[in-house]
Amino acid sequence: MTMAADWTRSLLNPQRVALVGVSDDPSKTAGRPLQFLRQAGFAGDIQIVNPRRETVQGERAFPSLTNLPERPDHVFILTDAEKALDALEECQRLGVPVATMLSAGFSEAGERGRANQARLDAILARGGTRLIGPSSIGIVNLHTGLMLTANAAFAEPDLPRGGIFVGSHSGSLIGALVSRGKRKGIGFAGLVSVGAECDLSIGQICHATFDDPKVTSYMLFLETLRDAEALRAFAIAAAERGKPVAAYKLGRSDEAAELAVSHTGSLAGADEVADIFLSECGIARVESFEGLIEVLPLLERVPASPTRRKGRVGVVTTTGGGAAMAVETMALRGVDVVPASEATREKLRAAGIDAGHGRILDLTLAGTRYDVMKSALDILRAAPEFDLVLASVGSSARFNPELAVQPAIDAAQGPGTPLAVFLVPDAPDATRLLAASGVPAFQFPETCGDAIAAALHRRLPRRLRPLDIGAAEQPSLVLDEAASYALFAASGLASAPHVVLDPGQPVPDLPFPFPVVAKVLDAEIPHKTDAGGVVLNIRSAEELAAAIARITARVAERMAGHRVTRILVQQMTKGLGEVLLGFRRDPQVGPIVVLAAGGIYTEIYRDSTMRLAPVSREGAIEMIADLKSSRILDGFRGGPKGDLAALADAIVAVSKLADAQDVRVEEAEINPLLVLAEGQGVLAIDGLARVSKT
Amino acid sequence: MTMAADWTRSLLNPQRVALVGVSDDPSKTAGRPLQFLRQAGFAGDIQIVNPRRETVQGERAFPSLTNLPERPDHVFILTDAEKALDALEECQRLGVPVATMLSAGFSEAGERGRANQARLDAILARGGTRLIGPSSIGIVNLHTGLMLTANAAFAEPDLPRGGIFVGSHSGSLIGALVSRGKRKGIGFAGLVSVGAECDLSIGQICHATFDDPKVTSYMLFLETLRDAEALRAFAIAAAERGKPVAAYKLGRSDEAAELAVSHTGSLAGADEVADIFLSECGIARVESFEGLIEVLPLLERVPASPTRRKGRVGVVTTTGGGAAMAVETMALRGVDVVPASEATREKLRAAGIDAGHGRILDLTLAGTRYDVMKSALDILRAAPEFDLVLASVGSSARFNPELAVQPAIDAAQGPGTPLAVFLVPDAPDATRLLAASGVPAFQFPETCGDAIAAALHRRLPRRLRPLDIGAAEQPSLVLDEAASYALFAASGLASAPHVVLDPGQPVPDLPFPFPVVAKVLDAEIPHKTDAGGVVLNIRSAEELAAAIARITARVAERMAGHRVTRILVQQMTKGLGEVLLGFRRDPQVGPIVVLAAGGIYTEIYRDSTMRLAPVSREGAIEMIADLKSSRILDGFRGGPKGDLAALADAIVAVSKLADAQDVRVEEAEINPLLVLAEGQGVLAIDGLARVSKT
Repeated sequence: MTMAADWTRSLLNPQRVALVGVSDDPSKTAGRPLQFLRQAGFAGDIQIVNPRRETVQGERAFPSLTNLPERPDHVFILTDAEKALDALEECQRLGVPVATMLSAGFSEAGERGRANQARLDAILARGGTRLIGPSSIGIVNLHTGLMLTANAAFAEPDLPRGGIFVGSHSGSLIGALVSRGKRKGIGFAGLVSVGAECDLSIGQICHATFDDPKVTSYMLFLETLRDAEALRAFAIAAAERGKPVAAYKLGRSDEAAELAVSHTGSLAGADEVADIFLSECGIARVESFEGLIEVLPLLERVPASPTRRKGRVGVVTTTGGGAAMAVETMALRGVDVVPASEATREKLRAAGIDAGHGRILDLTLAGTRYDVMKSALDILRAAPEFDLVLASVGSSARFNPELAVQPAIDAAQGPGTPLAVFLVPDAPDATRLLAASGVPAFQFPETCGDAIAAALHRRLPRRLRPLDIGAAEQPSLVLDEAASYALFAASGLASAPHVVLDPGQPVPDLPFPFPVVAKVLDAEIPHKTDAGGVVLNIRSAEELAAAIARITARVAERMAGHRVTRILVQQMTKGLGEVLLGFRRDPQVGPIVVLAAGGIYTEIYRDSTMRLAPVSREGAIEMIADLKSSRILDGFRGGPKGDLAALADAIVAVSKLADAQDVRVEEAEINPLLVLAEGQGVLAIDGLARVSKT
Repeated sequence: MTMAADWTRSLLNPQRVALVGVSDDPSKTAGRPLQFLRQAGFAGDIQIVNPRRETVQGERAFPSLTNLPERPDHVFILTDAEKALDALEECQRLGVPVATMLSAGFSEAGERGRANQARLDAILARGGTRLIGPSSIGIVNLHTGLMLTANAAFAEPDLPRGGIFVGSHSGSLIGALVSRGKRKGIGFAGLVSVGAECDLSIGQICHATFDDPKVTSYMLFLETLRDAEALRAFAIAAAERGKPVAAYKLGRSDEAAELAVSHTGSLAGADEVADIFLSECGIARVESFEGLIEVLPLLERVPASPTRRKGRVGVVTTTGGGAAMAVETMALRGVDVVPASEATREKLRAAGIDAGHGRILDLTLAGTRYDVMKSALDILRAAPEFDLVLASVGSSARFNPELAVQPAIDAAQGPGTPLAVFLVPDAPDATRLLAASGVPAFQFPETCGDAIAAALHRRLPRRLRPLDIGAAEQPSLVLDEAASYALFAASGLASAPHVVLDPGQPVPDLPFPFPVVAKVLDAEIPHKTDAGGVVLNIRSAEELAAAIARITARVAERMAGHRVTRILVQQMTKGLGEVLLGFRRDPQVGPIVVLAAGGIYTEIYRDSTMRLAPVSREGAIEMIADLKSSRILDGFRGGPKGDLAALADAIVAVSKLADAQDVRVEEAEINPLLVLAEGQGVLAIDGLARVSKT
């Protein structure tokens, strides 16, 4: 077996490819790749393997990979699953660096598929040849004519070349992206359908391309999240090279998440987790498919932000109605459309432009002239109050791009704030002109708002240590409430004062005043109230003794003689409000921290937010701002303010459970965490943790 | 002055038009209409008025309307505001049925504009000539070549004709709609820019066209809601004739609502009110601009529903990833994507189609064949479990529409469930083929979900009596709490048992048990608690006497000697939860009923819903279902159930305040309304009403 260290070069730039199982009929799926390679004028060698024919589509065929006169460096396997596994083993023996497998029929395909999957896993475990797929419709390099794909869309001549590399979980959508890009004059460097990612993941494949000078940006179509670590490493490397990454991800609805499961055989990840993961990787997630195509030129011009920003957009328009639609979609996505400053208005007036008093600069039909639009854009791009300038162009864009589109193209060539254009009518010529000039352009108000929000809200990737996504190696253990408090305290999170009593002993003096609450303390009784194990509002030592007796008796009655050996007595404290603070290890992205409204409102209003752990103090403050119900704790309707600074500290503390010494914390939940008045802190008044030995 | 009863015919089908103030330069805004009319071959007479020239664009000009040889029946006024008013007065004198006014410079334009507006109002008050505008960019009938417009988009030859009539608050967007429709092969019958609606409103203008056989459906672009009564009358008449109405409305964001104000000079309506109004009119509101263009063929095929429905969609696809995007957008908008029944799967299997077990029917690449797709669609369209069948077509749609698009076109010709097509790649030929066949087709997953949700959720218009949108003629009066309860009781809504006491008299025996609450009763003290006017948890007659004394003293102290003359004593009652129930008269749509979560959650989570009054019991049940927090009252997490039947009755009762006898109820608020356990009813425990004499 030969080492195949050069797989990254062979991925998109092989010298010699082999097609295994290619059909003689070029209209059949397995016949297409040969036809596409020839049509595209692929300059490398193309070798054909077909044990049943001496020629295929008029070219010489060999009976097996082993019979080829020279070793290929990228093999595209088009056979059924069983023969594909034979071919992959042959690749391994020959030291082929990389193979792409179209074949389906693995883990998604019943019993026989599971047998194939087991064999595939065994082959991959031996190392050597790296694999794209199975269920990959192929990989394409438009600059070299490497059309290793069976997707019918690549039969099209004159596909526009450009700098975008596409990684997709869906094979059919790489074709849809190419045709939709072509309409807009947006070209691609390469595209890959990653299939089931049994070996190479979408992150690894994209990572392998980022030093290719032909690749300037990335477009991801995600159905799930696999190998998050590689995806993050790629995103960080891409950010370092100034190559932006945009993603569309299915799964915002349960129904689509379910389809992603049945379609790719993988478990769909919780979308909220994926969303925050992409955000922390500095990947701009769009909500619309067309937005994915339109966003990249914008990302190339709008730098990612080190801190959170809403984004301030200045709008100039020749049509009030058209601009209003774009303003609406931006505002709905949390972007601020801001008016020009008085200084900027002064400059506009000096240039003969009546700036009015509104939020946007409406040049009206009368201002649809090159010189007016050019001056307005030059002045707005030089103004400090905007992160982005948007020019909205009305009817003239369709047949007279020289009036209000060309000035935008010309203005964009100079230095200044990034500029984008929204075209209100259908204006194919203007669209292509803008694309050729590299000016971000939008054909729809919705994609305009979607892409602008994704670009302005994009953050620099956060540099965390490697994601800790392994499962616990030891069996885990649920800690009781007191032990959980001790664990939280070690991270710096306080709980309400409490002591642990033996119910068989007399009640001692308490180190805190009444009223108190008494709770059964037993890791085997997580639902203390249901077990009769809680008494509230205890006002004296006598009441406490009675409460302990009552708890002991009730638990014994409700839990078949279960003996209460410890009682937790806790000072009752009043706060201004409560939250839920949680920690868990997500199987896809590792440790995460969750802040939620608590009580029934978390569920009814889905009021919660999360981050990857550890969380910085700035991140914690952002989380508090994300939570709608935080307003209740922040002087809502003139009420008192809660200690949100302490809440931020508590979030940071809980996020450090990811790094707890001596134990590995699997999950923890503080519910509720009481938020006291400003300056008085926060206190855990119930909580549980589950740990495993490290 | 001549009566102008025939304005409706002159609107879109005049025999003789006159252009006032037309420019000799056809490239100028005021020169365009003449050029467009000639280019389009308008068959009627065209008369030109220009006091400064003998010829305009080579044609004879007359100095004034009065000098014209024959009376025109539609005059398009292109001058500045002052001259436009002169021309309008001339139209009145001559008995011209209808005039359209391009001129701006009225209420939106400062002091001079307000003077013009006053003169315009005075002219319109005299009756006679009906006016479109001012600030109207014109009106177009594509079937007759009536191009009374200055919108540059209509310079385009070969604009596709069809059955859609467009009414728009924005002048520029009628051009954008035409160009965007043309790309899809969707044609228009006519378009109107309604401007400031100083006389004819968008509803009146559309209403005037609905007997035109060339008009088969309506597309509205709304920036606000004016003359809701006419809009509703039109919507009902259109529904009777089977002509669907779709609307895009700005204002979902505060920013866009603000722009609508500055742009059209009108007060933007609260969007929630407009939303429910459109819904109750049976107008399908879409969220995306492109969705407005794509939705009408679907509305022509999917009947409006008499009851609320989520809608059940069956999906068949040649590409899993493409269909998943469409499923996602439908699910996010509350549409159910449902799997085929076992009986349907049996039929599919009999036709040789492996139906699998998933939510959608994925034919895969291998099933991208005419016979497979045709059979699948025929079987799904005959199945009873769907309200709509969606065919999602992948790469083949671009160059081989005969494979999977043509079978959809052919299948749609037969009887069965409505069918729509989502095209995953850019496929212009397939798009136009589908449009020519009248099959609803979507180019984007987002417009697919948007349009399908709008169509399936569309209701039959509700027949209410005329909207009561007049302001109160008498000064209004705030009722105190006891009088408000009496008013509510007359409508059938109970309040908690209470009596009114004189604080100067001894406390009598109460007709209900303790504990009670005592509250100052005074319409001049709406904020009772702030005034020290409330004491809770009163457990005996002695405590009550003390509480009354305390209230009297505190109110006197806090309100500068205000004398308390009446105390309301009310039994304290515990419920399972509370809601806010309100009634008010919206200036645009008349009486409405609001149900909200109550407390801080209404504001923080925006948890509220509304309907036009009166509300039926079915409508009340829908409102309860709309309210997210209703789940708390419906056995949430195994808890007890609240009396939601009584809550529905209460909503109906409050909605009847619209028809209260003897008084006109201006507004009312019951906050909170206590919801008791199932079977025990609901009780108002605080409330106020404001009434005016009728």
